[in-house]
Amino acid sequence: MIDSPQNQHVKLFRSLAEAKHRRETGLFALEGRRLIQEALQAGAELVWAAYDPEQFTGPEADRVLLGLIQAGVEVLEITPRALAAMSHTESPPGIAAVARIKSGPASPPLPASRLSPLASSPAWALGAWEIRDPGNMGTLVRIAHALGAEAVIALGHCVDFYDPKVVRASMGSVLWVPLLEVALPAKAGVAPIIPGDWHVVAADMAAPVACDEAEYPERCLLLVGSEAHGLPEAALCLAELLVSIPMPGGAESLNAAVAAGIIAFQISRKLARPEAGK
Amino acid sequence: MIDSPQNQHVKLFRSLAEAKHRRETGLFALEGRRLIQEALQAGAELVWAAYDPEQFTGPEADRVLLGLIQAGVEVLEITPRALAAMSHTESPPGIAAVARIKSGPASPPLPASRLSPLASSPAWALGAWEIRDPGNMGTLVRIAHALGAEAVIALGHCVDFYDPKVVRASMGSVLWVPLLEVALPAKAGVAPIIPGDWHVVAADMAAPVACDEAEYPERCLLLVGSEAHGLPEAALCLAELLVSIPMPGGAESLNAAVAAGIIAFQISRKLARPEAGK
Repeated sequence: MIDSPQNQHVKLFRSLAEAKHRRETGLFALEGRRLIQEALQAGAELVWAAYDPEQFTGPEADRVLLGLIQAGVEVLEITPRALAAMSHTESPPGIAAVARIKSGPASPPLPASRLSPLASSPAWALGAWEIRDPGNMGTLVRIAHALGAEAVIALGHCVDFYDPKVVRASMGSVLWVPLLEVALPAKAGVAPIIPGDWHVVAADMAAPVACDEAEYPERCLLLVGSEAHGLPEAALCLAELLVSIPMPGGAESLNAAVAAGIIAFQISRKLARPEAGK
Repeated sequence: MIDSPQNQHVKLFRSLAEAKHRRETGLFALEGRRLIQEALQAGAELVWAAYDPEQFTGPEADRVLLGLIQAGVEVLEITPRALAAMSHTESPPGIAAVARIKSGPASPPLPASRLSPLASSPAWALGAWEIRDPGNMGTLVRIAHALGAEAVIALGHCVDFYDPKVVRASMGSVLWVPLLEVALPAKAGVAPIIPGDWHVVAADMAAPVACDEAEYPERCLLLVGSEAHGLPEAALCLAELLVSIPMPGGAESLNAAVAAGIIAFQISRKLARPEAGK
């Protein structure tokens, strides 16, 4: 039974709140029954799990513990004191686990092979441009997952996909969607990061084409900027298609994740029913 | 120059973080240049404003101060110490103001007059069902504002529209959109809260009609539930139209505000171009 806040598992788990330690170890942290269940379903490689036998009980809990054991994951017991010492949340749920990160940083250009689905089928991906807010990033990954994106690509200096707050805000979608990180080259130009048969789409409130009237290319990379700054010139220059969200009400803008959701929905529907857009 | 944390203005402002004090005084708090500028543009009744003459400077600041004076608002100077004592944010911007709440609780049924736009024009409103999270509520009000809703109606026990966190998350949209609060009657049934010529629309992932293929009635009340619990049976029972958001990717769900944005966008577009839906 793990009890000491100085235990090595406790110290490792706590350290995974920091990007530096995630990079060094190639591991990330998961807390709570739903996320761990999701990780099992997604076939994530879990290294170990620790649960409080007093708090983590009931049929749902038993199912998760059984799933962990069947998957060959080391399952440890832990006291509330040690669980509280390692948790990244204010009220730790009764179970936590450590998993291995699948994706890693890629160099530009984007590996086209990782963005190429079955030949001839239309596809889209979401490009997160310098998104620093973990809540926004998690919500974007959740949108990408729900609406069938091939991948989410973190462009430039973004919050890490495996930050515990991103993992939580994504509701586990980081476990399902292929994730790529691509550094932006210096000022020389960013065009080389996009594979040749992909076409960049971006939102621009001044664009004359409404997002629900646009014809989307068969390989769409939807770029989304941060809540505070939107997309910079360097990103807008890459776009072959700019679309707007008509706002009859007069607000200056929508929340960045909501705007991304509206456009991503249009793309996913048009790709699913190509005749509808014509 | 206000300097004491015990000053009456400081104490009043600080107290407005609590719903009880907002109800008692009929006032709410605004912080930062953009929100106060928005309040002036929206014609909100500002009672007084206080700014730190060292921090709140520059042409944009001057314009806001001039606007306040021209609107006959009492403008006070305040020290950083007093500003920090009254602020609801961690790093207080250099200006804060107190404004009068326009809307108030209404008894069911909803006052149809407040939901009836110009005769014969289509319209929609957003019904927030027991939304307790201030960030979600603010985002919903922002969606309603951007997409031209007639009103946002808080149904049941929701977070107050004038909570400082809701005001901030709405990016000032609470100053523009008509806001109503309606208590839910006890178990006897909630149907009487909806005026006769309005029709309730709700999202239901199992609904056979996709939100972009539905025909929306001319007076739509879109019900949105909380992130954690969604819409309860009592709310779904009210709906004359249930729509789904097709999710090809397999995520269980979208973030509640993103889902609301996607459906609200469909409604606002179909109402603007009725032929498109047919």
